[in-house]
Amino acid sequence: MSLLTSHDVLTAADRIHHLIAPTPLLSSPAVNDAFGRETVVKAENMQLTGSFKVRGAFNAVAQLSPAARGRGVVGASSGNHAQALALAARHFGAPATVVIPADAPRTKVQGVQALGARIVTYDRTTGRRDEIVHRLAREEGLSIVPSADSHPVIAGAGTAAWEMLRERPDLAVILVAVGGGGLAAGTCLAASHHDPAVGVFGVEPETADDTRRSLTTGRRVRIPPPSTIADGLGHTRPGGLTFEINRRLLADIVTVPEALIAEAMAFLWRHYRAAAEPSGAVAFAGLLQAPALLPPGPVGVILSGGNVDWPRYKTLIDSVATREDHHAAALLR
Amino acid sequence: MSLLTSHDVLTAADRIHHLIAPTPLLSSPAVNDAFGRETVVKAENMQLTGSFKVRGAFNAVAQLSPAARGRGVVGASSGNHAQALALAARHFGAPATVVIPADAPRTKVQGVQALGARIVTYDRTTGRRDEIVHRLAREEGLSIVPSADSHPVIAGAGTAAWEMLRERPDLAVILVAVGGGGLAAGTCLAASHHDPAVGVFGVEPETADDTRRSLTTGRRVRIPPPSTIADGLGHTRPGGLTFEINRRLLADIVTVPEALIAEAMAFLWRHYRAAAEPSGAVAFAGLLQAPALLPPGPVGVILSGGNVDWPRYKTLIDSVATREDHHAAALLR
Repeated sequence: MSLLTSHDVLTAADRIHHLIAPTPLLSSPAVNDAFGRETVVKAENMQLTGSFKVRGAFNAVAQLSPAARGRGVVGASSGNHAQALALAARHFGAPATVVIPADAPRTKVQGVQALGARIVTYDRTTGRRDEIVHRLAREEGLSIVPSADSHPVIAGAGTAAWEMLRERPDLAVILVAVGGGGLAAGTCLAASHHDPAVGVFGVEPETADDTRRSLTTGRRVRIPPPSTIADGLGHTRPGGLTFEINRRLLADIVTVPEALIAEAMAFLWRHYRAAAEPSGAVAFAGLLQAPALLPPGPVGVILSGGNVDWPRYKTLIDSVATREDHHAAALLR
Repeated sequence: MSLLTSHDVLTAADRIHHLIAPTPLLSSPAVNDAFGRETVVKAENMQLTGSFKVRGAFNAVAQLSPAARGRGVVGASSGNHAQALALAARHFGAPATVVIPADAPRTKVQGVQALGARIVTYDRTTGRRDEIVHRLAREEGLSIVPSADSHPVIAGAGTAAWEMLRERPDLAVILVAVGGGGLAAGTCLAASHHDPAVGVFGVEPETADDTRRSLTTGRRVRIPPPSTIADGLGHTRPGGLTFEINRRLLADIVTVPEALIAEAMAFLWRHYRAAAEPSGAVAFAGLLQAPALLPPGPVGVILSGGNVDWPRYKTLIDSVATREDHHAAALLR
C-alpha cells in the first residue's frame, strides 16, 4: 500500500468540505488570561453526528465504487464511528452495518438507529469485534470502513486540524486525543504540511496508554481492555498504519488521570459552554495536566466529540462542581 | 435622530467583524427530518461573553470619541449586556460601569467582574434602573450604552442575522427572541435588506409579552415586571426605537409558555449539544410551539445566549428529561 502523505489530507478536505459542518474554533478571553497564551478549541462535538468521525467516514465511502456502495459498508465502533458511517452511507445510498459493543452509550446507539443502519452487537470483553466484521464483509460482500486504521479514514480525520490551522496559522502546539490513533495521525500529517515546527501532542487516559507504551518500546504493545470513562479511547493496541505515522510525527504523549477528564469536561462547559463527552475532553485534560510543560505559543485543542447521555454528563460535571480542590476551578478563581 | 437602515447593519458588520467570534450555524439531519424542513441555529451562546450582546456593545463603543472613551461608559443590563459592555470597554481602554439587578444570575455577575468593570446593583422591583444610569452619566461624564434601544446597538445586533443569511441565503423564516427588541429590530433590518420576503418572527415568553400587546394596540404598552425563567427578556415595555422598527418589519409575534422554554433548552442540548440559557432558548421554543403555523421553507433560529449557572441549567434540563409528555421528546421518538 502506498504511503499516506499530507497531500491526502488536503485532497480529503476538498472531497468532504461540502458534506460536513463548518465547526467553530472556540475562544475565551478569560481562558487565554488564565493560561497566559492564546487557546483555541476546535469544536468537533458540533460536527454532524456529534464527533469528528464523519470526516473519515465520508472520505472513505466517497471513494467506493458505485457497485461497492450498492453492496454496502460495515464498520466496528464504540459508537461515534458507527454514527458517522451510518450518515455517510445514507448520504451515498449505501446500506450500512455497524458492529458495536453491547454496552455502548445509549445516545450513540440511538444515533445509529435514527440514521437507519443495521446494528450488530458484541461483548467488549471477548474481543471478537474484528472477527464479526470480517465475517460480515466476506459473507455479504460489504466494504469494511475501519474506525481509525485506514488511509481514507486517517486522511479524513486530519481535515479537522487542517481547518484549524487555516484559521489559526500561528498555532505552535496542538493537543489531540489518541484512541485508535487515526485523529492523531491525521493531525500530525496536517500539521507537518502546515509547518513541521508545530508540536502535536497526543493525550491518552492513564489507564489506556497503549500508544504511550508502544512509543516507549518502539513496537505496538497490546494492553488488557482498559477501564476508562473515555469510552471512545478504550483501545488495546495502536493501529498498524496509525502507529507508523504517530511514531514518526507525534512530539510526545501526555497521559491524564480519570478525574482530570471530568474536570476538563466541566472546564469546557464553564468557559466555552461546550458539551464534551469524556473522550472528547481528553485532549483538553492534557492542557490542564501539563500547561507549563508544553512548548510556548498559541495552542489548539481538538474537542473530538460530544456524544454523552444527559444523566452521565450531569453526574460527571457534578462530580467536579462539588469538589473544592480541582485544577479547573483553581485556574479561574 | 436620523433613521436607522439596513445599511447601518452592514457597516456594523464591517466594523466589528474582526473583534467578535465567528459563531457557527448548527444543523442536525435528525432535526431536519423531524421538522420536515432545513433548520439552522445561529449559536450566539458561543459568542464572546456568551451572548450576541457583544455585537452591539462593540459597535457602540467603537464609535465613541477618544475623549468619551477616556471618561468611560455606563449601561444597565440583566447581565449579558453588562458582560458585553465590559469586554468592549476593556478592548477600547474605556472604564466601564454596569448597573445590574441585585438578583442577576451569578455566572453573569462573575463574567462582569472578571472583565474588570465596576458594578452598581439595584432592586429589580423598583424600576429605578434608568435613573441610576442617567445620574452616573451626568455626574461622571460617562457615555450611556443602552442594552437595546439605541442605533449602534440595534445595528450591531443585526449582524448576527446578517452573518446567518450570508451563509444560508435560502432562509425563508427567522425566529428571534424579543426582550428590549434590539436583536429583533436588527434582525428585521438585516433580513429586509437580504430579501423582504424573509419572514422574521419575534418570540416572547407568554408572561413577558409587552411587544405582542404593543403591536396589537399599535402603541408601546407597559406591563408589570414579568415573572419568567428567561431572565434576559423581563422587559416591561418595548423601546421607542426598537418598536418603530419591529412594528414595521416583524411578520408576527409567537408567545411561548415557560415549560416550553425549558423543553427548548433540552432539545438544543440533545440535538446540537448547545447550551442555551432560558432567554437564549426562547426563539427555538417558538419553533417547537408553532412549526406548522410558520411559512414553509428553511428556518434560521437565533440562539442568543448561553449564560446560565450549572445548577440552574441542570435543574431545567432535568425538569424536561423526567417528563414523558413533552413536545421535544415526542418530536424525536
